[in-house]
Amino acid sequence: MQDIFVKDIARYEGQEVRLKGWVRNIRSSGKLLFIIFRDGSAEIQAVAFRGDLGDELFEEAKSLTLESSLILTGIPKKHQKIEGEYELSVTGISPLQIAEDYPISKKEHGPDFLLSNRHLWIRAPKQWAILRIRHTVYYAICEYLNDHGFFRFDSPILTPNACEGTTTLFDLEYFDEGMAYLSQSGQLYLETGIMSLGRVYDFGPVFRAERSKTRKHLTEFWMMDAEAAYVEHAENMAIQEGLIRFVIRTVLAKCDKELGILERDKDVLRAADVPFKRMTHYEAIEYLRERGSEIEHGSDLGAADEVLLTEGSPVPVFIEKWPKDIKAFYMKRDPEDDNLVLGDDLIAPEGFGEIIGGSQREDDYETLLGRMKAEKMDLEAYQWFLDLRKYGSVPHSGFGIGLERLITWMTGTHHIRETIPFPRMIYRIYP
Amino acid sequence: MQDIFVKDIARYEGQEVRLKGWVRNIRSSGKLLFIIFRDGSAEIQAVAFRGDLGDELFEEAKSLTLESSLILTGIPKKHQKIEGEYELSVTGISPLQIAEDYPISKKEHGPDFLLSNRHLWIRAPKQWAILRIRHTVYYAICEYLNDHGFFRFDSPILTPNACEGTTTLFDLEYFDEGMAYLSQSGQLYLETGIMSLGRVYDFGPVFRAERSKTRKHLTEFWMMDAEAAYVEHAENMAIQEGLIRFVIRTVLAKCDKELGILERDKDVLRAADVPFKRMTHYEAIEYLRERGSEIEHGSDLGAADEVLLTEGSPVPVFIEKWPKDIKAFYMKRDPEDDNLVLGDDLIAPEGFGEIIGGSQREDDYETLLGRMKAEKMDLEAYQWFLDLRKYGSVPHSGFGIGLERLITWMTGTHHIRETIPFPRMIYRIYP
Repeated sequence: MQDIFVKDIARYEGQEVRLKGWVRNIRSSGKLLFIIFRDGSAEIQAVAFRGDLGDELFEEAKSLTLESSLILTGIPKKHQKIEGEYELSVTGISPLQIAEDYPISKKEHGPDFLLSNRHLWIRAPKQWAILRIRHTVYYAICEYLNDHGFFRFDSPILTPNACEGTTTLFDLEYFDEGMAYLSQSGQLYLETGIMSLGRVYDFGPVFRAERSKTRKHLTEFWMMDAEAAYVEHAENMAIQEGLIRFVIRTVLAKCDKELGILERDKDVLRAADVPFKRMTHYEAIEYLRERGSEIEHGSDLGAADEVLLTEGSPVPVFIEKWPKDIKAFYMKRDPEDDNLVLGDDLIAPEGFGEIIGGSQREDDYETLLGRMKAEKMDLEAYQWFLDLRKYGSVPHSGFGIGLERLITWMTGTHHIRETIPFPRMIYRIYP
Repeated sequence: MQDIFVKDIARYEGQEVRLKGWVRNIRSSGKLLFIIFRDGSAEIQAVAFRGDLGDELFEEAKSLTLESSLILTGIPKKHQKIEGEYELSVTGISPLQIAEDYPISKKEHGPDFLLSNRHLWIRAPKQWAILRIRHTVYYAICEYLNDHGFFRFDSPILTPNACEGTTTLFDLEYFDEGMAYLSQSGQLYLETGIMSLGRVYDFGPVFRAERSKTRKHLTEFWMMDAEAAYVEHAENMAIQEGLIRFVIRTVLAKCDKELGILERDKDVLRAADVPFKRMTHYEAIEYLRERGSEIEHGSDLGAADEVLLTEGSPVPVFIEKWPKDIKAFYMKRDPEDDNLVLGDDLIAPEGFGEIIGGSQREDDYETLLGRMKAEKMDLEAYQWFLDLRKYGSVPHSGFGIGLERLITWMTGTHHIRETIPFPRMIYRIYP
């Protein structure tokens, strides 16, 4: 008899097969037993008759509880009512381990209880669906980049210096070498990689020791940073848009069932796969002020501004050409206006906030040096970064995507903590 | 005129194209200028005639130095002597930035100098080749797992507990929650994931604060951990073997040029793509003693033992069924011998050492609890791990691959520090 996964059930219609998994749900009705059976790949309804199993096995099977593990044998049959669905007509049941008092029931649980039981909560259908979409989003990003000439270039986590400020860094003692910091972004290291490989990206965990407690913040999250030689501002945004639209198409193509479980409106996602809206930062401020905001030119945008900017927009909105004083030291000045930098943020629709930050990078040694001095940076610690402007400097650009932010949008998840297997937040490091 | 990458040059034979990159090497001879030009994707010899460029531009081009950045236009032509190679017949040269006194020359540099200039060293042909093979190995592992029903399940880096011992952990303060530790392995977390997704893996950085200074150790390295429900010891090893053989085939198929640059013997890799050798730990000790070793039964294997065990073997060697006292608490006992566990290590040939460690896991609550008590582990901190044996426990197995170890073998690299963009070792955290 063939051992198969539930996802492959259609190929075995009418043949007896063996399935290994868990009880999602169970109910009996006289001589009938219905098990919603899951094996990680999918779910199926299994139907057992007392007459087929015999009294003893039927009674044993009735004792199965939520989340008990079991091996089923049976014959897949087309579901009588639902097109494309299958049922298993059970020929044998081997309970493996009976789960007693599974803590997560159908009733509502508070977030703290669920997070403390995250190791079990991930079995719930919505969490299963989100984690599968996470996998799909991750590889859609990799596939797009690989197809566009980018090479994976893993930047280090343990760093002797800070990419953006030092107040939100986790630090630790590194042997006799002094303090080390957990990376907040691999970007600066990626800039070295383009000089070898042309186009590179990293995709790994980054860390921010921020004492913020919002539904959009994690202290440990996954970030993809991409960097490309000889790519300037406009092409940089074109790559970002191409990538995000590819992610949308891939999720729609591969995660139909998962989006269904999450009750995510697929038309809303489909509608975002058209050219994105573009505004300069100046235009964004004007737009906000016209709608009653008192925000001043030159100011950074807050979460509420992002919501207002995308309200009613089916597509993400690029905000480009930012005032230099509110952006990082490495961004290149706009040749048309020395007060601006060639940076862009991409704001997701539906209030999901910023999903990309990118910019063309300053490639002139003296200009960069001046900017770093003005910010009182430790020039010796960053000499390697300055070196890139001494030995074959080229125009180049890059951007970073927050994986979990993108997943909240794709899945329509309210709180970012559900988009990663084990979320780390200010008050949460267990399990 | 089309902007192209060097790797695509063959498609543009006879058409004028534009290339953007760097000078790998340059020499002039009277009216001729030869530039070895690289753009990250590949290299090409560009040939310029004084007559074509004009005196002024020709002289400017002659001032180009090693690693200067430039844009070339020219017409790709078949190389006169080397089959399959192309040359660029230059029509125009635009130097972008002249690199002065590039620090890395042809002469031998010591490892400390090269590591301090790692941001530049990665441009060297061998480093470029290793980094490209790293990319290929990474995605070969992902592809194999994705094709075999595994889902990516990123385990956390910041953990409240230690997977294997506490002496080699990096620790840091986590807000008001006490100490957190950088993960040494995601395995325990992956065991939660199989109960949701069936088969899972993570693939990210892990950390060991080991004060060892060998050519096989990094303090930060990349690890793939895989875990599968309802997979037992024999199938676990079959998956490992299938995966490693797929990696070998993929590297041979995709990295011919890179292996050539590294002078890696492809026949040696090809010869490893056959069934691997298998020995029990007992047999391994016997084998070593027959060859003059004084190692005792029940002992762990050292680096020298690994070399002796694989000497003359074209294939990796599995060592399975280890004495329980020298393996981790979570490994399942061998039903045929209670003193052994169903663990396996995979030792690469040619002295490259251990590349995989795996085992079937203990799935019985009481047995695991007993083992954890015997090791005086903090049961409360690991309650979530014990829970997995209470709520639908299933037989399951998994394994971990050290990415950099595998790359040293594939590339034939002597020291592991060259297999990661920015190596972290006991005395090295810069750049």
